[in-house]
Amino acid sequence: MNQRIVVIGGVAAGPKAAARARRLDPRAEITILERGEHASYGACGFPYHLAGEVEDLDELRQTANGAVRDEGFFRKVKEIALLTGADAIEIRRESREVVYRHRTSGETRLLPYDRLVLATGARAVTPPIPGVGLDNVFVLKEFTNAGLLRAAAEATEARAKGEPRAVIVGAGLIGLEVAEALLVRSWHVTAVEMASQVLPALDPEIAAHLEKYARGRGLAVLTGSRVEALVGTAEGTVSSVRLADREVPADLVLVAVGVRPEVELARASGLVLGPTGAIAVDEHLRTSDPAIYAAGDCAEKRHTVSGRPCWVPLGSTANREGRVAGTNAVLGPSETFPGVAGTLVMRFFDLTVARMGLGEAEARSLGFDVETAIAVGSDKPHFMEGAEAVLLKLIADRATRRLLGVQGVGTGDVARRVDATAAPLMTGMTVDQVANLDLLYAPPYSPPMDPLAVAANTLRNKLDGVARGLPPAEYRAWMSAERACCLVDVRSPEEHRTLPFPGGRPIPLGALRARAGEIPRDHPVVLLCKQGTRGYEGQRALEGLGFEGVTYLEGGVLGWPYGD
Amino acid sequence: MNQRIVVIGGVAAGPKAAARARRLDPRAEITILERGEHASYGACGFPYHLAGEVEDLDELRQTANGAVRDEGFFRKVKEIALLTGADAIEIRRESREVVYRHRTSGETRLLPYDRLVLATGARAVTPPIPGVGLDNVFVLKEFTNAGLLRAAAEATEARAKGEPRAVIVGAGLIGLEVAEALLVRSWHVTAVEMASQVLPALDPEIAAHLEKYARGRGLAVLTGSRVEALVGTAEGTVSSVRLADREVPADLVLVAVGVRPEVELARASGLVLGPTGAIAVDEHLRTSDPAIYAAGDCAEKRHTVSGRPCWVPLGSTANREGRVAGTNAVLGPSETFPGVAGTLVMRFFDLTVARMGLGEAEARSLGFDVETAIAVGSDKPHFMEGAEAVLLKLIADRATRRLLGVQGVGTGDVARRVDATAAPLMTGMTVDQVANLDLLYAPPYSPPMDPLAVAANTLRNKLDGVARGLPPAEYRAWMSAERACCLVDVRSPEEHRTLPFPGGRPIPLGALRARAGEIPRDHPVVLLCKQGTRGYEGQRALEGLGFEGVTYLEGGVLGWPYGD
Repeated sequence: MNQRIVVIGGVAAGPKAAARARRLDPRAEITILERGEHASYGACGFPYHLAGEVEDLDELRQTANGAVRDEGFFRKVKEIALLTGADAIEIRRESREVVYRHRTSGETRLLPYDRLVLATGARAVTPPIPGVGLDNVFVLKEFTNAGLLRAAAEATEARAKGEPRAVIVGAGLIGLEVAEALLVRSWHVTAVEMASQVLPALDPEIAAHLEKYARGRGLAVLTGSRVEALVGTAEGTVSSVRLADREVPADLVLVAVGVRPEVELARASGLVLGPTGAIAVDEHLRTSDPAIYAAGDCAEKRHTVSGRPCWVPLGSTANREGRVAGTNAVLGPSETFPGVAGTLVMRFFDLTVARMGLGEAEARSLGFDVETAIAVGSDKPHFMEGAEAVLLKLIADRATRRLLGVQGVGTGDVARRVDATAAPLMTGMTVDQVANLDLLYAPPYSPPMDPLAVAANTLRNKLDGVARGLPPAEYRAWMSAERACCLVDVRSPEEHRTLPFPGGRPIPLGALRARAGEIPRDHPVVLLCKQGTRGYEGQRALEGLGFEGVTYLEGGVLGWPYGD
Repeated sequence: MNQRIVVIGGVAAGPKAAARARRLDPRAEITILERGEHASYGACGFPYHLAGEVEDLDELRQTANGAVRDEGFFRKVKEIALLTGADAIEIRRESREVVYRHRTSGETRLLPYDRLVLATGARAVTPPIPGVGLDNVFVLKEFTNAGLLRAAAEATEARAKGEPRAVIVGAGLIGLEVAEALLVRSWHVTAVEMASQVLPALDPEIAAHLEKYARGRGLAVLTGSRVEALVGTAEGTVSSVRLADREVPADLVLVAVGVRPEVELARASGLVLGPTGAIAVDEHLRTSDPAIYAAGDCAEKRHTVSGRPCWVPLGSTANREGRVAGTNAVLGPSETFPGVAGTLVMRFFDLTVARMGLGEAEARSLGFDVETAIAVGSDKPHFMEGAEAVLLKLIADRATRRLLGVQGVGTGDVARRVDATAAPLMTGMTVDQVANLDLLYAPPYSPPMDPLAVAANTLRNKLDGVARGLPPAEYRAWMSAERACCLVDVRSPEEHRTLPFPGGRPIPLGALRARAGEIPRDHPVVLLCKQGTRGYEGQRALEGLGFEGVTYLEGGVLGWPYGD
């Protein structure tokens, strides 16, 4: 008898698992049950539909060749039965049957399986805020919702007297992507975030760069702010957002306070959930029932750097896991999924922020003896057109010199440098190895020392006690504490004037040895330059003259993330 | 007594070694001897000066902050004695002295050293072609030369009646970069190459893509052509280039037939040269004399994939090696240089070509049982603005499934995908591991399945016998041999019309199972689609129906590199 494979969930991991199973077993009977009206769509494209970059929402469920991935497509092209509006309500594990209800007819049916793949995804958290049910309040998760959000934005624009105003509750990835889309549409946008920083998945100083840039692009940012209520008009449309200390007018509100794995069906079926609340799976993506696999946002993952369970919902992971689950549903538990590295990337206008591996605080909390380095550079030689800034922060373990994480921000090609660390993070390479990767080099692509190599060398120099970089956050803490120190600006007099930084005493690097007598020996000395390089050189020069306690500001003026 | 470090060669590896040594030892006496009039310049930027992207040649020897790296800069900022016009003519190894002659005064001096770093670089090969000494015939290697080339181009433009004409002898990296620069300046440019393809460091079908693109940009390409003579006017200016079968008019000729390591001084000093002809060094970059290090283009390298000696001159390697040599000159042989991976990248207008690791033929010649895969995709989801094509070819060892090499071409972000393989190639990762790297994902950066993951999965499918991809070169050989086979175009009828491919019988993938009866079972069947994905799906579908000998054209129509 042909093998019967049932997949619950038709957005990302589900269709991938089904398609992979089909390619491995031309005779299997494969069915996808999808609760919504649409399947196999790129939900990550929703913000770009709102921004107008993706004009037709249906483009998100088309192949590259323009075919819409609907029921007919799956039947004819993939020989897969896709049932939309089919709500799986029960898994009878003993008899290996799924009970599903058809949403429109209300009819209930039984579907037997030999292997079941759970790909139920994640759901947006709707917080219990008064007024969250008002009109023009949205969460962005399902296909239909994305269309409604854009229609509401357009309708609001049509009737707005001045600039329409939006409040984004939650300045995470989705919140900021939607904020950008509305800024593109010329809205006044305020992002309200409970945490003390935007995009809490980033290290604080990297998030501070993003916040500074976002403000420069017109986004109003209120961090450390909790929404107390959404306030509406008599007609029931949202009109403002009430915080502890103010009320922010709003013609439209997006609630984007996070997502959680969709595990109700798994839980009700008695499948084991992991410590993160997602469905526990082994390295073959098998759940506690060996006939049932789980893939995508509903499944727990292993962090390849920490080795611990984690939950990072992401469309790329869903696709990779879907392939593994589809393979194993056909062949048995043969293929393994190695886990994820906590990868995140976001574009905000021309700025890229990205992270991979462990963050600094995360690494410390796991017991690593952490050293970090920040390096600022250019993504191409400065003489090339279009050279842009790249800031990289590397995080390593002192004892083993292993790279634990990387974070990046800049208008330059941050993504290439962060992606180059994917394999080092997976395999546990040291920063010494990373510094000597034979990365691509030609002037249109990179300076002769790639920013990643520069960052790795900076970290090696710190680990070796040669470079004494002072992270911006530490210097800021010194300033707050009014700690006595002498800031020496080793840039040229012209740079000192044109890109000012408070408190620096100008002594250009070329005159530092000759004028060292002007620098006090009884205070800590901090050297300042544009991106940290000359500060480091100056530190070594002063140490050669017998100075002690000399540091340099890591990342220099360009790496300074604070608005103050 | 302070340590005396002498560096011979002041372009890339030399200044890097000197600066690193200074940072590690503030008291060392450090001297750089540079034969030319300029030092510490970005020679890789020469073509961009010719193109006008770098207006002032001096930008190539400035820091990012505008300081010119001349003798005064090295003295004041680095406390390093840079001597230009200083030609090292002898190394007296027993007494540890370098003899150098000052070019203008002709004076000869002795410089004692404790540690010597050789960074003598490479020299351009000038082939023994009659007429190579004519006016307006250039090689591009030294700083002064770059200025003369541009001046000659401008003068030629000023006196040219029609479009000025250039012939580039040698279609390697430098030749093609200069060709692009002259095309930007609206010249008629012909590239003459002795080998059967442009950029011989690339696999032939990748080079074929580049050649096709370059022709589309107006470059005349003559491969398999040897220059017999350069012919001049009565005034001694070049006027044409004579080949076996034709004469190509030329107002200017660039000879770019390759570079060789500059090892005369090392050889004369009795230092051991390696099998590649470059200076043999150990993993600490020490030569056969433990007091002498070598770094940059003059030094032999170890290939990290093959483990064998190789010689790949590159500015990035020079900088990395300079750091190692500088460290070890101060601290003794402590730091190691792991080697290079045969990295190459070039931009030609909007096209990127890149390679890393071993090429296919190279891997076979080293005895690997090679499997390859070509995958074509888009660098972002197709619905995003600015999504562009990326073609990746992966090369692996069948027995171990280890990734041996990658090559890429496309107008999309090829560089990010190739750079992500730097660590896998260095550490010997398998294609299975590469397929599951947690690469960055968000729509502005990547499709949910990154092109690198798709390429790795394609190769895994081939290794596992699931996908039967036919490389374009093989299908072309079938066609040349008039081998009977049935080409089925599984694209939509519209695609079949708008992007035609000779000989395909149209049966869209969605109808393939139903219309399988139309396909002969007694001939090899080749399935054709736009980029290979549907061809592979069709192959699996036909195999499910009992067909044997079904393959698909790898990379599809977009991956077809041939103009014919």
